[in-house]
This record gives sequence, C-alpha cells and structure tokens, in this order.
Amino acid sequence: MRYFEYFSEQEVRRIHETCLRLLETVGVDFSFEPALEVLKKAGCKVEGQRVFFPPRLVEAQVAKAPAQYTLQARNPDKSVVIGGEHIAFIPCYGPPFVTDLDRGRRASTLEDYINFVKLGHASRSMDITGGMMAEPNDIPHERRNAEMMYASMRYSDKPFMGGAIGAEAARETVEMAAILFGCSEAELAEKRPIISILCARTPLAYDDRMLGAIMEYAKSGMPQLISSLSIAGATAPVTMEGTLVVQNTEVLAGIVLTQLIREGTPVVFAGSSSCSAMRYGTLSIGAPEMAVNTAATAQMARFYGIPSRGGGALSDAKLPDAQAGFEAMMSQLMATLSGVHFVLHSAGILEGYMVSSYEKFVLDDEICGMCKRIKRGERADEDRLAFELIRQVGPGGEYLTQKHTFQNFRKEIYANIVEEKDTYANWQQKGAMSIDRRANRKWKEILKDYQEPQLPAETDKALRRYIERKYGA
Amino acid sequence: MRYFEYFSEQEVRRIHETCLRLLETVGVDFSFEPALEVLKKAGCKVEGQRVFFPPRLVEAQVAKAPAQYTLQARNPDKSVVIGGEHIAFIPCYGPPFVTDLDRGRRASTLEDYINFVKLGHASRSMDITGGMMAEPNDIPHERRNAEMMYASMRYSDKPFMGGAIGAEAARETVEMAAILFGCSEAELAEKRPIISILCARTPLAYDDRMLGAIMEYAKSGMPQLISSLSIAGATAPVTMEGTLVVQNTEVLAGIVLTQLIREGTPVVFAGSSSCSAMRYGTLSIGAPEMAVNTAATAQMARFYGIPSRGGGALSDAKLPDAQAGFEAMMSQLMATLSGVHFVLHSAGILEGYMVSSYEKFVLDDEICGMCKRIKRGERADEDRLAFELIRQVGPGGEYLTQKHTFQNFRKEIYANIVEEKDTYANWQQKGAMSIDRRANRKWKEILKDYQEPQLPAETDKALRRYIERKYGA
Repeated sequence: MRYFEYFSEQEVRRIHETCLRLLETVGVDFSFEPALEVLKKAGCKVEGQRVFFPPRLVEAQVAKAPAQYTLQARNPDKSVVIGGEHIAFIPCYGPPFVTDLDRGRRASTLEDYINFVKLGHASRSMDITGGMMAEPNDIPHERRNAEMMYASMRYSDKPFMGGAIGAEAARETVEMAAILFGCSEAELAEKRPIISILCARTPLAYDDRMLGAIMEYAKSGMPQLISSLSIAGATAPVTMEGTLVVQNTEVLAGIVLTQLIREGTPVVFAGSSSCSAMRYGTLSIGAPEMAVNTAATAQMARFYGIPSRGGGALSDAKLPDAQAGFEAMMSQLMATLSGVHFVLHSAGILEGYMVSSYEKFVLDDEICGMCKRIKRGERADEDRLAFELIRQVGPGGEYLTQKHTFQNFRKEIYANIVEEKDTYANWQQKGAMSIDRRANRKWKEILKDYQEPQLPAETDKALRRYIERKYGA
Repeated sequence: MRYFEYFSEQEVRRIHETCLRLLETVGVDFSFEPALEVLKKAGCKVEGQRVFFPPRLVEAQVAKAPAQYTLQARNPDKSVVIGGEHIAFIPCYGPPFVTDLDRGRRASTLEDYINFVKLGHASRSMDITGGMMAEPNDIPHERRNAEMMYASMRYSDKPFMGGAIGAEAARETVEMAAILFGCSEAELAEKRPIISILCARTPLAYDDRMLGAIMEYAKSGMPQLISSLSIAGATAPVTMEGTLVVQNTEVLAGIVLTQLIREGTPVVFAGSSSCSAMRYGTLSIGAPEMAVNTAATAQMARFYGIPSRGGGALSDAKLPDAQAGFEAMMSQLMATLSGVHFVLHSAGILEGYMVSSYEKFVLDDEICGMCKRIKRGERADEDRLAFELIRQVGPGGEYLTQKHTFQNFRKEIYANIVEEKDTYANWQQKGAMSIDRRANRKWKEILKDYQEPQLPAETDKALRRYIERKYGA
C-alpha cells in the first residue's frame, strides 16, 4: 500500500530544517521549572522560560523514540500495535456536553462516560477506549480522573486513554493501572496498557499542567501523544504550510523532553492542527484544511520514524446530519489513506469538540468500519483474481448462485451496522427513517445487549479502595 | 503529490496479464454486426458474437489512446483538461426520479433537467454539466436526447455530456454540437466539446445500443468513457480483485474497438464497479468496496497511460442525511487521493442512482469544493512556510491581527457554501437548521440568482430549427 503524500523528499527536509531553525533561534516557552532544568542540563540555552534547542540535540533525541510498540490490553486478544501498517481508532475526547435525539444537548455526567466506554467496548472498530469521552460534570473535579479511569478499566477490556490534566492525574492513572494489572510500575512499563494525550499551548509553548503530565508519564515509560493543535490564522500563519511548521516545531520540542527523561519513551507524533472559520472566529475542525494537515503530519512522522496521530471523525455540525457525515468521513478517510497510526476522536464528536453525540458515535463507528475495510485493501494473488471462476461463468453469466460467492461474501464485503441499503419501497414500509434515527435505536440496543468483561473481584475492590482512600466513599 | 495506491508494479502486471488471458481465451460478446466486422478485420477470432482478442492487438491499440486532452467549452475560460494532474467533476447521470424537501420524490421532468444544468453552471466545482442529470419523463422518448442537449448548450457555457442511448442519439449530439460551434464535424473533432459515457453489459459483453454509440462517437473523434459497472457477487466474483479483472477486461475490449475505428480517439478508462448488498440483493454504491475499486481503477489506468474515471458523490441513502454525507465523501475523496481524472455523479445522487436530489446536489457541491481544496495540496516553499512571520510573532503570540492573515485568508482557507460553522448559540438563534434544510434554501437562491450565458440568437434559432425539423414544434 502506497500512502497519499503531498511533499517531495526535498520539501520534507526543508520543513524539518525550518523547524530546527525556529527551535534554535526563536525557541519554545516551557513554563515549568523541572522541565527547564532537564532541558538546560541537556545543553539547551534557557532564558527565563524560553528554551533554545541545538539542532543536533533535537535530531539525536527524536531518533530515540521507537517506531512501533504494543499497548497491552487486559484481554490479550485486544492488545493494539501502534505503528507499522496498523491504524488504531479511539473515540471522542474532551467534550463538556453530550447530546442524543431524545434528551438533547446537556452537560455530560459519569453515566454518559460509562455509556461511551460500553459503546467503545462493544464496537468492532474502536481499538482503544477513552479518555474523557464525556466530562463527568456530576463528579467533584478532583475525583473525576479516578472515576473515569475506573470506568475505563471496568467496563472494557481494551487498552484505554490515561488522564492528562497534570502530573497528579498522570501519577494516579499509572498507580491505578498497576493495580489493574496486579504488577509493579516497572512491569507496567513493559505492558503499556494506557496512552495519554499531552498538548502544546500553541504557538510554541507548553504549560505547567501539560509538562507535569508529560514528565510523569515519561518517567513511568507510558506511551503518550505529543500533540499540537495550531490554528491557521489564529495561533499560526494562515497558510497550512506555516501552520505545519508551528505544529512540527512544538511536537519536536515535546518529544525531545520525553526522550531526555527516559530514553525510548513511546510517543506518537501528533498533529491536529486546522484553521479558523474566519467569518465567525471559531476553530473549524470540519474544514478541508484539517485533512490537508493530517496527510502532512503523517508524512512528517514517517520522516522521523515515529507513529503518527491525525484525523478523526471531526465535525463542526450541530446535529448528526449530512454535514456531520461528510466532514467526519473526510478526516477519517484521509487518516486512513495517508498512513496515520493513531486516530483520536474517531467517534462521537460534534460542534468542534464541544459535544459528544450518542447517535454520531454509532455513525462514526460505521465510518471507521468502512475505513478499516478500505485499509485492508486489495491483494492481487491468483486466488483472489479468480481467473478460473470468471472463465467458467463466462460472458453474460451470473455469480449470485456460485458457491464461491456464498462461501466468501461474509469475509469479502463489509457488513454495515446502520446504513440503509434496502429498496425504496421496503424502506418506506419500515418507517422511512433517516440514519440518525436508526443510530438512535442502535445505541440503545448496544447498551441493552452490553456484557461486562468481568474484573476479578479483588482487583475491583482494590481499585475502589484506592479511589475511596483518596477521595472518600 | 503521490497518489494512494494498493498494488505493487508486479501486481498491476499480473492483473493486466489475467485480463489479456481472458480476452484471448474466454472472449467478450459483441452483439452488433458492424463491431464484429471491425474486430474480425483487425485480427480477432470471432465465433458468433464472441470475440477473442490477440494480446498483442490489445496492447498495441490501447497504447494509441491519448494520455491527456482538452474539452473545449463555448466559453473558452471553461475548457477542461482531462488527464495529467487534473480532476474534473461532473454531476449526477441517469436517475429516473428526482426529489427535494418540498415536493418529495417524483418522476423527473425537463424542468428538473434544466434546473440541474443551471445548478451545474453556477457551481464553482462542477467542470462539465450532464448528461441525463434527470430523465425528462414529460418529453416523448425519441425527443428526449435533443431537448437535453439543447438545454445543456443553452443554459451553461461549460463542456457537457453527450447522449448515449444508441448510434442515433450520438449522431444527433454531434450534429447539434457542430451547430452550437458553427463549425464542420471535422473541426468539431479538434474542439471536443462533448464527452459521453458508454458502458459494457457486464459480465464481458457489449450490447448493440452501446456499440452503436461507441462507434458513432469514435468516428467523429468525440471523447468517450469506456465504462464497466461490474458488481461483486452478482456480475463478477465476490472478491473485489476478481471484480476488477472483469471490469478491466471489459474496458480494454471497448477501448480496442474505439482505436480500431479512429486511432487516437480520446477515451477515459472508466470503472464504477462495486458490490451487491447481499442481504437485499441490491447494488450498493455507498459501500467501501466502491472506494476500493476506485483506487484500483485509477492505478490500472495510470499503467495504461489513459485518463481514469472513478468515484462520485455516491450513496445508497434515501434522504440527504448523514449516510448520504459520509458515503458521498468516501468515494469523492478516494477519487481525489488516488488520482482519478473524471468523476461522474459528483453531485445529486441518492438511492444508488435512482434519484437526483436538489438538496444533495448542493451538499455534494460543497464536498467537491473541499476535495478540490485538498487536491490543491501543500507547497513547502520559503514563502508559505513563513519562517520570518513565525519568528516575529514568537511563542505565545497571535496571528489573527497580522497583515499576512488578512491579506491571505481568502485564498488560503476554503470558503464554504452551506456548512454550519457558527457557534451553538448563534446557530440556535438562526433557527437551529440541519444542513439539508440549509441546502434547500441554497438551491432556490442559486436558481433565483442564475444568469443565462446568452447564446447568439441565430445559434439558438438553428438549434431549435434542428429539433423541430426532426420532432415537430
């Protein structure tokens, strides 16, 4: 499979060198003393919070990040390879609101979070569960990370996203994961069941919360996305090429820090930059510029030999309507065809990260299944080219009643989840439903049929005890 | 720009050789005496209607088809290059029904056809107008082609699709085009203002109607799509690789005929194969297998050095809902990223080619605009990387008030047509509309604002006289 790419080798090198020049002469702000110390000791020039990176240091450290690694799930069948020819889909992350067709838009609760863990668990296409799929607004602030992690551990046996709201949440996540696996933290560093997203404060800065978490996870050897969301026309130049330079510079700076703390820390080269909708001054994640940046990010990450993040079922739409559909597919398919490895926000996002939608979760799950079918691709071997069968059937024949068709269609043709494929007459008879209404039925059905992947009783107890000791019953 | 590809060089060659073997030993049915004569004279073995092709004849003839050519529009600014790095979008083709949110699903009329010509003319992204965008069911059968061609010539000054319902319609289309351009048919062959789609009767056959039109257009030197719609599990093996072999064999056979009739006839290597929705026994054009086949078609066409057709804003959905959105974007973006040159059905299709939708026309026009932005791509030159600007703004700065942003955002960032990008609060205040309702407003607005690109009075009169002489007033 040859991935879609925008740049020549020479252009990739020019982008890289522009970033090195920025890192050396303009610098990046790190507002966290422990990070400044590490960087200074490694040979960076530090003035106040501004850090200037020697180009050779950047290249040497970035080269230490691994090209591929595995996140171990508590169900070993569900472990996930990050890198190589693999693509991993991960649901929505971060919205403070939730919506569905019955109850409308509202502040999300822990129940919503748990429901999304269950939907992620039940999905054929989601490889990893969140990670802040819905903010549990009904839980006290300080307790939220622990309750989300517990829910991720209990209601799914897939790998999961860790907390990212500072060093303390990172520590807590690692400690809870060690309880889940009944192992030491040193052993946990071999298993890597969690991965977290840490983000620059664009342009060209990192804040103390993010740096605290980056350093904590790096110390523990836990994988992390070093991510930039530069916004063309707002936090970066209005050209997507200039925005790519800002993004690339930020990500390189963050990765250098991770490798200085612990050589070989698994990272993902993570770009989620887009542009602003200039008329409204809002961030636009449904814009084609987002897809453009996804392909550029994947190519830059390949140059560095590090797994990439980009894409997502992203949308600016307010409803699970046609706009939500085509925007989500655009970024998701671009990630698939440009060789992205890690696709955050693969299900549920509406309104530019503001809302997680139950219906859109199901629709995006369909999109992800279709993209995985496309990624599986074609293999032109004798068997699949089927010369002998075509010869036998001959001109004017039919294949519907062939044994070959009956034996193979289930594995050959994508089995849809909610897409409408019936005839018009049948569709009318069934109630003439639009797909958002079908998705509404579907998520309720999935939650109803959900089966909990039982945790051992003592593990569950130990996790609850950990939380209650910290935050009360 | 490096296009997405599935196959290695060796695999492409294996597919090609499998097709040559089929052409030589299994053959293709041509149920049209004049075509059999041409093929026999060229050295094919003919048994009844079955034609067996010597491999060297196939390779020699296919090599004669040009890699690139221009369709001349009556407005020279709107001429369209087929081939090279170009992608051309063409609206829906063939549906017998039409639908909109106000009047619902119904048999289409000439008025609908004219409306779609106007929408295609007004679009920034449609390069060529149809071509059977809506069947004029209110016009007598024999007169339909002439009235559609007249409408295409009068209401738009872009190149247009010609009739394809047999030799007579092809002849008529060429004669009317010569009147439009006020030139001889020999001169018309230099201008090529029309392009038509001719389709195999899969598997491995061509019928008399299609062969009549192929031969007529080839004689006139008019460009044509030689197209196959093989259906995995119905008219072709259930593996998409086997389906590709059937498609490729059919297309090669058709192209050989065009080059034997007139060497250098411009053709498009056209694949629109997909799979059946096995549960319902219906053709599925919204399936990921359709997108898989699009990439495969583009790669095979590159191997032959002939412009390719694939993709389209295709959907099985019954309404302009999220399914319509994500299915359309899937095939449209795949065409864009795999290097397809000619994308038929780029606007309006619902229900697997059964319906043209006014609202979906507008939504797909948005999708096409986004795909063209993505195709424009990135160019990593010093100017666009914007080092100096990033240096000046520095860490923690902002770009919104920079002169560079103000001067460039219009050409840098895609300007959307109907997408909702506003804040939630503003969206609510504006009526909380879904995008299909916005599209409903939009197409009415476009038709209201439409301005006719005036034909010279005598040309218009000559065209009407041609039609009335043939079919009465």
